[in-house]
Amino acid sequence: MAPHGDKSDAAEDAMVSGAEKRSISSVLIVIAMQTEALPVVNKFNLTEVPDSGFPKGVPWVRYHGFYKDLEINLVWPGKDESLGVDCVGTVPASLVTYASIQALQPDLIINAGTAGGFKDKGACIGDIYLASDVAYHDRRIPIPVFDLYGVGLRLTYTTPSLQKELELKVGKLSTGNSLDMSPQDEASIVANDATVKDMEGAAVAYVADLLKVPAIFVKAVTDIVDGEKPTTEEFMQNLVAVTAALEQAVTKVIDFINGKCLPEL
Amino acid sequence: MAPHGDKSDAAEDAMVSGAEKRSISSVLIVIAMQTEALPVVNKFNLTEVPDSGFPKGVPWVRYHGFYKDLEINLVWPGKDESLGVDCVGTVPASLVTYASIQALQPDLIINAGTAGGFKDKGACIGDIYLASDVAYHDRRIPIPVFDLYGVGLRLTYTTPSLQKELELKVGKLSTGNSLDMSPQDEASIVANDATVKDMEGAAVAYVADLLKVPAIFVKAVTDIVDGEKPTTEEFMQNLVAVTAALEQAVTKVIDFINGKCLPEL
Repeated sequence: MAPHGDKSDAAEDAMVSGAEKRSISSVLIVIAMQTEALPVVNKFNLTEVPDSGFPKGVPWVRYHGFYKDLEINLVWPGKDESLGVDCVGTVPASLVTYASIQALQPDLIINAGTAGGFKDKGACIGDIYLASDVAYHDRRIPIPVFDLYGVGLRLTYTTPSLQKELELKVGKLSTGNSLDMSPQDEASIVANDATVKDMEGAAVAYVADLLKVPAIFVKAVTDIVDGEKPTTEEFMQNLVAVTAALEQAVTKVIDFINGKCLPEL
Repeated sequence: MAPHGDKSDAAEDAMVSGAEKRSISSVLIVIAMQTEALPVVNKFNLTEVPDSGFPKGVPWVRYHGFYKDLEINLVWPGKDESLGVDCVGTVPASLVTYASIQALQPDLIINAGTAGGFKDKGACIGDIYLASDVAYHDRRIPIPVFDLYGVGLRLTYTTPSLQKELELKVGKLSTGNSLDMSPQDEASIVANDATVKDMEGAAVAYVADLLKVPAIFVKAVTDIVDGEKPTTEEFMQNLVAVTAALEQAVTKVIDFINGKCLPEL
């Protein structure tokens, strides 16, 4: 059993579940796009699991392997059956996260992927952000309390040591199902105080929270949303280069996690 | 075994799966809000299943019962644990639909609920629509092919006899996670040629299609989106009255389905 940091207070100890007291052994990496996933798959020599444990007919892909003391599963929602493009967005991400938690019971989820960044908040192309919290920017329900539900704010699992050691930037993440940003999205993103914008994070956080699995969010900036260039063009231009930076960041995170228990992150 | 309509051609017969040749025995009703669900629960004397078969911690609620020759399960994503409001929108709807299909293996899904209607397309308050197809209006991804994926158009299970017998209006359904409608949403709804607008349909259709379960969509109009009154006010005003009309429509649909096989709908 790994040491429980310097927290020796009995009451605090009692609050820490068994899973938190032992070293992390199983990590689930959730990635939305094949281009983002493959560098990580290759880095850790993960192999595709033909009988993924998922229902027949779903396009979800699971890669599996061991690295140091960790069992790593990487899931990707796969390609749309009829259109052949990656199943991006909140619905496939939530489904594959749910099914993977049920099948694999991971100790920790890492949602890794690309994101748009806001230069007004200090983001640059290629930056890697660890999300401090996540929220939606495309669920406007102007009825009291439902409005808060729509925003769906969730704190991510706190990882002060990881953040310090890896010198990752930290910022708030806002999620919506569109690659572009409408004026209404923008107003919500500003209200969310977000530095990075993606298409899956808040949905992964929702499912992780429902099923009580700690989740962290590693997002690499492919495009500057409040910059001069059109988002789509910049996203496509930087996608491959930035996914290499993302792989390196995920590797550093995995190396840091190895041998530690959750409260040590 | 119920007769297979007047389709006697062998080739056509061979294409019809076993499930389609026998009478429908298990129906899954997916409803997003408690206010929409309870009239249906009461009508069919369904009882809440304490051990729902869903994972520990999820707020999803399952009601179960028998009506005529049908086993009916009604699922509702429940209340948000911290905020206490119904878990509306695409992510909870997709998750509860997925988990319910896995657990219950229904022959047919009915997604019933309230919707906004467009008077320019002939919709009036209290109208009941059967959706001919469903699509999203809040997933704008302006990259070739990804744009089509974002729209996510899916035809619903064709039910010409049901539609004729029950004299239901038929229209296209467009889904988004906001109760209001931004100009971008409106442009997408127009492109989708939609008559009704909801917050779950396309997500339920996506999951049903993934897992190859026929699904139909029964939507009751609570508010006129292109009318004079603000959507929220009109929605709240008509919610209870319109859910009564929705219950009556669902009852008629269930009565029609009873004893029939899928191709007879």
